[in-house]
Amino acid sequence: MSNSRYRDAGVNIDEQDRAISAIKELVASTFTPNVVTGIGSFGAMYQLPGGYENPILVSSSDGVGTKLKVAFMTGIHDTVGQCLVNHCVNDILVQGARPLYFLDYIGTGKLAAGTVEAVVSGLARGCRENGFSLIGGEMAEMPGFYAEGEYDIAGFITGIVDKNQLLTGDGIVPGDEVWGFVSSGLHTNGYSLARKVVFDEMKLTVDSFVDDLNCTVGEEFLKIHRSYRPALVPALKKNLVKGLAHITGGGFLDNIPRILPATVSVEIQLKKVPVLPVFDFLVNGGKIETEEAYRVFNMGIGMVAVLAPENRSAFLSAVTEEPVLLGHVVPGDKTVRLV
Amino acid sequence: MSNSRYRDAGVNIDEQDRAISAIKELVASTFTPNVVTGIGSFGAMYQLPGGYENPILVSSSDGVGTKLKVAFMTGIHDTVGQCLVNHCVNDILVQGARPLYFLDYIGTGKLAAGTVEAVVSGLARGCRENGFSLIGGEMAEMPGFYAEGEYDIAGFITGIVDKNQLLTGDGIVPGDEVWGFVSSGLHTNGYSLARKVVFDEMKLTVDSFVDDLNCTVGEEFLKIHRSYRPALVPALKKNLVKGLAHITGGGFLDNIPRILPATVSVEIQLKKVPVLPVFDFLVNGGKIETEEAYRVFNMGIGMVAVLAPENRSAFLSAVTEEPVLLGHVVPGDKTVRLV
Repeated sequence: MSNSRYRDAGVNIDEQDRAISAIKELVASTFTPNVVTGIGSFGAMYQLPGGYENPILVSSSDGVGTKLKVAFMTGIHDTVGQCLVNHCVNDILVQGARPLYFLDYIGTGKLAAGTVEAVVSGLARGCRENGFSLIGGEMAEMPGFYAEGEYDIAGFITGIVDKNQLLTGDGIVPGDEVWGFVSSGLHTNGYSLARKVVFDEMKLTVDSFVDDLNCTVGEEFLKIHRSYRPALVPALKKNLVKGLAHITGGGFLDNIPRILPATVSVEIQLKKVPVLPVFDFLVNGGKIETEEAYRVFNMGIGMVAVLAPENRSAFLSAVTEEPVLLGHVVPGDKTVRLV
Repeated sequence: MSNSRYRDAGVNIDEQDRAISAIKELVASTFTPNVVTGIGSFGAMYQLPGGYENPILVSSSDGVGTKLKVAFMTGIHDTVGQCLVNHCVNDILVQGARPLYFLDYIGTGKLAAGTVEAVVSGLARGCRENGFSLIGGEMAEMPGFYAEGEYDIAGFITGIVDKNQLLTGDGIVPGDEVWGFVSSGLHTNGYSLARKVVFDEMKLTVDSFVDDLNCTVGEEFLKIHRSYRPALVPALKKNLVKGLAHITGGGFLDNIPRILPATVSVEIQLKKVPVLPVFDFLVNGGKIETEEAYRVFNMGIGMVAVLAPENRSAFLSAVTEEPVLLGHVVPGDKTVRLV
């Protein structure tokens, strides 16, 4: 029996040190004046901003699911982090919250400093573009947990909103309008099904060029999950929105009901949905039924806003991109009907 | 080519619904009056407590590393969550912060509601025992990512401290005393090496009874990472401590320097360290060198407190368990010497 060293057991502390030094600058590039800490303290510190009468912290944790498999297949690791950040930003935006800071968790079998740096560069870009800070994270090297070259990432966001600015959807009534903002593609949901259709059934690879998509499968599948914060904040500041739903796993059918009062439903007119080519491609290629497709994919709309009809023109002037009128709120039972 | 359904692609939304309903009560059992939300909203909401002049949020993300492998080997899944929570609580305790809320991330290949419920029961117990709330989380079912029956978990904690109560270690000077609080075992670090020694080299199993440990390998390896909050809070309230270091991966050698000013070092007298039987067992079994052992394992001390000698008796009266005097602060260069 030879002497046991930690490295022999599969954990490489030197490679961890290299990874940490590689990401230090990336992380620092996101710091706002409220970040109290550098890197190295046990917990990351953030000075609470003033000016809130009754501050509510809004937090969410998330991953990017099997979109990561596409990163592994293409060797492109610097975009999934941005998807993760934007996903989290959208998840608290729907409650009216402004993002303050983000922490990540990266689990991997064998740590490769270059891959970690690429992942963190995506996280940092996402934070910078949304104007908030990546203040901490954990890199866990877990031999035997993940396949060679693979990893999982999770993100944790903390935001803030004044209680009287909380978006709850409570005021939604029949007659309200349901507007949609376009997605950039799959965002971070439905990848298990999409990969099955495209790789297992259609026998394509990430390098296959698809005319209908005007790009390769890999390029399409790695398109970055959008942040809807820039488009919507001006309308939120003017209190023009009653409720927002981030269209993630579960699609319209599961996500819109999360903001509906018990006695209303939403009717979405299918012909109004600007279905993206990638979803036609997947639905046709996999012979996926409409209801199933709308439960798994966002189909082309990543964010839904509900507003009073009298606010329509003010809303359309305030938002920084043109949304689509998808349907209306009707009397009902907290469901979504595709009509 | 048959119709594609999401379940065929390995994602089982019904099993997810079962898991969610199973954990609802567990999660609700941790709620304090500051929790604004139930389960189901996009982000989880927490009303900031009042009474802080200059509130600093302190956050940390962490995992439990390959301690999870021991959970898989024994089929005992309801303790690792508590380890994760306590680890995070300790990580912000060292900055003087009180935990407010926790979110988790559970990544798995194929979701088993019973396993998820067990994991969450550990998380909930950890939160309840530390008096704070589990307010949200993400369960990600990622076919092909994790081996059958395996998963990874990450935790995210948010705490708060008034700026003038922040523990930074800045006031540490030569002559200060270094006290240690005993650990319960490996806590959550060094499992890759420990498993290599015990399973690969010594050829034991989780069911092997070890006389020196007076329990099985599985029982020893699953012992719960302690929270040092109850023991230390009374001393922190009286401002009797200059700095705290949570002894995790990197041991004394890497963790104590994190709180030291640039011109001091710490001398730890090895003969004062109450080495737990499990570490003797691992060091002897794996022929691990002393320096290496002290860099990988906590060796029997999970938390270190640095204080002025004149506060010793007040400190010993305030803390709720008896610590061990490990050594002293000396002039130096931010390092730890084992003497």
